[in-house]
Amino acid sequence: MSSTPYAQTPVAPLRGTLFIGGERVTGEGAALRSRDPRTGVELDPPYRAAGPAEVARACRLAEDAFDAYRATGPEERARFLERIADHLTGAGAELVARAHLETALPEARLTGEVGRTTGQLRLFAQVLREGGAHGVRIDPALPDRSPLPRPDLRQRRIPLGPVAVFGASNFPLAFSVLGGDTAAALAAGCPVVVKAHEAHLGTSELAANAVRAAVEECGLPDGVFSLLVGEGPLVGRQLVTDPHIQAVGFTGSRTAGLAVTRAAQERPRPVPVYAEMSSVNPVVLLPGALAERAEGLAESFVASLTLGAGQFCTNPGLIVAVAGDDLDAFTGAAARAVAGHAGATMLTPGIAAAYGRDVDAVAGRPGVTVLARGTAPESASPCQAALLTVDGDVFRADPELQREMFGAAGLVVRCRDLAHVAAVLRALDGQLTATVHSADADLEAARELLPLLERRVGRVLFNGWPTGVEVGHAMVHGGPYPATSDSRTTSVGSLAVDRFLRPVAYQDVPAELLPAPVRDDNPYEVPRLVNGTLETGS
Amino acid sequence: MSSTPYAQTPVAPLRGTLFIGGERVTGEGAALRSRDPRTGVELDPPYRAAGPAEVARACRLAEDAFDAYRATGPEERARFLERIADHLTGAGAELVARAHLETALPEARLTGEVGRTTGQLRLFAQVLREGGAHGVRIDPALPDRSPLPRPDLRQRRIPLGPVAVFGASNFPLAFSVLGGDTAAALAAGCPVVVKAHEAHLGTSELAANAVRAAVEECGLPDGVFSLLVGEGPLVGRQLVTDPHIQAVGFTGSRTAGLAVTRAAQERPRPVPVYAEMSSVNPVVLLPGALAERAEGLAESFVASLTLGAGQFCTNPGLIVAVAGDDLDAFTGAAARAVAGHAGATMLTPGIAAAYGRDVDAVAGRPGVTVLARGTAPESASPCQAALLTVDGDVFRADPELQREMFGAAGLVVRCRDLAHVAAVLRALDGQLTATVHSADADLEAARELLPLLERRVGRVLFNGWPTGVEVGHAMVHGGPYPATSDSRTTSVGSLAVDRFLRPVAYQDVPAELLPAPVRDDNPYEVPRLVNGTLETGS
Repeated sequence: MSSTPYAQTPVAPLRGTLFIGGERVTGEGAALRSRDPRTGVELDPPYRAAGPAEVARACRLAEDAFDAYRATGPEERARFLERIADHLTGAGAELVARAHLETALPEARLTGEVGRTTGQLRLFAQVLREGGAHGVRIDPALPDRSPLPRPDLRQRRIPLGPVAVFGASNFPLAFSVLGGDTAAALAAGCPVVVKAHEAHLGTSELAANAVRAAVEECGLPDGVFSLLVGEGPLVGRQLVTDPHIQAVGFTGSRTAGLAVTRAAQERPRPVPVYAEMSSVNPVVLLPGALAERAEGLAESFVASLTLGAGQFCTNPGLIVAVAGDDLDAFTGAAARAVAGHAGATMLTPGIAAAYGRDVDAVAGRPGVTVLARGTAPESASPCQAALLTVDGDVFRADPELQREMFGAAGLVVRCRDLAHVAAVLRALDGQLTATVHSADADLEAARELLPLLERRVGRVLFNGWPTGVEVGHAMVHGGPYPATSDSRTTSVGSLAVDRFLRPVAYQDVPAELLPAPVRDDNPYEVPRLVNGTLETGS
Repeated sequence: MSSTPYAQTPVAPLRGTLFIGGERVTGEGAALRSRDPRTGVELDPPYRAAGPAEVARACRLAEDAFDAYRATGPEERARFLERIADHLTGAGAELVARAHLETALPEARLTGEVGRTTGQLRLFAQVLREGGAHGVRIDPALPDRSPLPRPDLRQRRIPLGPVAVFGASNFPLAFSVLGGDTAAALAAGCPVVVKAHEAHLGTSELAANAVRAAVEECGLPDGVFSLLVGEGPLVGRQLVTDPHIQAVGFTGSRTAGLAVTRAAQERPRPVPVYAEMSSVNPVVLLPGALAERAEGLAESFVASLTLGAGQFCTNPGLIVAVAGDDLDAFTGAAARAVAGHAGATMLTPGIAAAYGRDVDAVAGRPGVTVLARGTAPESASPCQAALLTVDGDVFRADPELQREMFGAAGLVVRCRDLAHVAAVLRALDGQLTATVHSADADLEAARELLPLLERRVGRVLFNGWPTGVEVGHAMVHGGPYPATSDSRTTSVGSLAVDRFLRPVAYQDVPAELLPAPVRDDNPYEVPRLVNGTLETGS
């Protein structure tokens, strides 16, 4: 996407260290460096990976910090999240410059991502003040009930314990060191140990500076946050299997996500893993919409497909529509736009190589036609946009065609009629999103598809493109396997706090000992379900 | 427990069939029979196990029924649950008689269990009418927001799909064919395929009659409910791995629970498993309580320990206390009560044999002393109560001493002081419950223990015994591994409906297509989080 020369903005001095609790530590492992994805040249400083003792120490410190941290009240914890956001904002220019250097993502996009990341932290502060996440339920005692009295029963949710977070490559801020998983875990009351993504180590250090400053200002225990650097099979695996870690948040490839999930399941005491892995995000173009605006749809489709070199979990990689003149008008216009696309630099040379292999693999399947390729850019990490097409029956019969091509590549599936469209959609694996483009005339067709789509995805959207993921209370960024390892949750939006909580009941616990959220006087003014009836907190 | 001669109440004619959807089917597999646990004699009728085609058909029918069933409104679904409860109540005498024959549990207890089971179904009807389980969140569109407008986003929860439920042996009604998992799944909108427990096949058929009658009366699709019979490694495994099954509820042994969990994880598309497995339910006797009422505690302890031959998931199998005269008074009185216990018949000869082996194994560990054994009853499934003791340091060093002895056996752990008590508790695996007996003088000690206990359990209770599990909104019957496979949930109480739901977001979906719970006019009057602020539904 970026054709600007890379930023000359001065960046803060990077020290190439891990953070083990409050301490900056030079790792005992091998040195890693991020690369400039445009040139492939290694960047300073080197970061030596954490050794086994360092990983263990970060996890032990997190456990040591857990009880004190979870005992903080909602206001104290909310202010902590807001202070992190303040420090991130303060470091915004440096973060953008360094992230641009490490990811080649455009500075405007990265500036927006700083705002998204701080907004996310502030959203969880709001969640803490609202209090619904405590999940309070009270069934008061019924001493005169017959044949047996009912005890006093109160329920709230407590945090699971220390959480391991794996930074994602494609959102160096919003899904990385201080991304949604970290914000949700800290909001829940869980200390966090992050494994930085090796593609943006400097950005990770800068983000860690922000959280460390906030930890100190707020007088929280050091172990609330640590940042590790290292390879997935070594440091990542040790982190997931450390006995102190009680949950894992991951965003990345299916291969890595499944490895993390398996490692967590094979522990002597398994822990939940929230892995967001892969999705092709089907888009249905209904006949009325195609008849009305085929060329406009093609234009907005290619803009969404190629945004950020297509490196979005919600990139619209699959178009499903009834064949005919209107679809031909769409594919013709989309092919022209793709062919005219100048290409872009991807996040890493490795991601670019995988993209190229995936496009070649799909293009090489029987029945697949390449409609257009964009220009191959001069870059060490080139993304050459691609548009392919295949018949619906071929698609249904060949699971390889559901492969995610992480990058700016789309596959148009041509169907005979709407029943064929539905059959294609039924053959799909779980997805993060499904999109429908419709006109007034399509209302009944859309009504039939909606139950089918909602079963396969975490978000259904109409007449838009899935690449914008709003951070709010009602967002779901999740979906059935293999989109994620756990469809019962979201990795974007305030519901994500649920990932790191579990319910506990208190039976006949003396009033003096009851935790604040379940006390009769409701000091945090949290919503409560009392005898099955909901009472708002204030 | 039962010394009454076994019931002669006439039971309904049993037909020895499976239910595949609406059809009574004689299985294609080998014949299974329940036994009278007192005599070991096989009972009529034989039930032929489901063959592979029958398992697959039940699952396919469940999938076929899913969309129509989940489209039912809350009132319709609530009435369905209530009609099941009505039919169960109507069959109460027959259910009790047959269950008594198959389990040897006392008729009074089984009569109570019918009430618990129907109460559970009615509780979920209440949950449906209250509407919070829809999980509705609405972030209305902000078309004028800068730099980008906010889309209209609405969130609700939808059911996961067909659910497999494994009946438990120890609650032939409340945790079996129509137990908590089935009630919660049906409430969530999920069709259910049950594998009956082979120890009470006739009771299972009678319960299935009740649900089949309700399905027909309510005009629901046949596949909403099926009942299978068969061995775990064959029918159970096929059920868990059937591609239509989207979640599994299980209550039973750790070995079987882990096998079910592994099978679900190894599927091409893994699904969540809620397995409740094993717990020793630690009870802390604080010094003030022991000084005040050692003998009374001993009496109520042994009553709870031996209730139902100790066959409760929440049986108090572990006593932790500071050694001294008061503890000696407790153990002395408890030993006398155990020694005087007449014994009881367990649920099956196999369970009795396993109990005997487990008690021998724990008794044979270094440092363990047997304080008392009860009388061995004349029975094919004898439970001979047992009380053992061990020093706290030995306990901490030997994980084998945390083994669940499913039955009426307790282990008293003697500690030097309160710090030693805390160290013993810290060494414990995850548990369903922890109990504290305290007096006024123990308040500070209890305050220190509470955070430690709540991290290890699903329910903390004071000055009672854990064997009564109230069915209500605030109950948690769950806890960290290995008590269950998923601590984020409960198997008793209304929160259990969450097990079978997942969130979906609707972005800019036309108003005419929005599902009822997220429509502006809120026809179900459900609570909603609007822009982050909670609104009750009415």
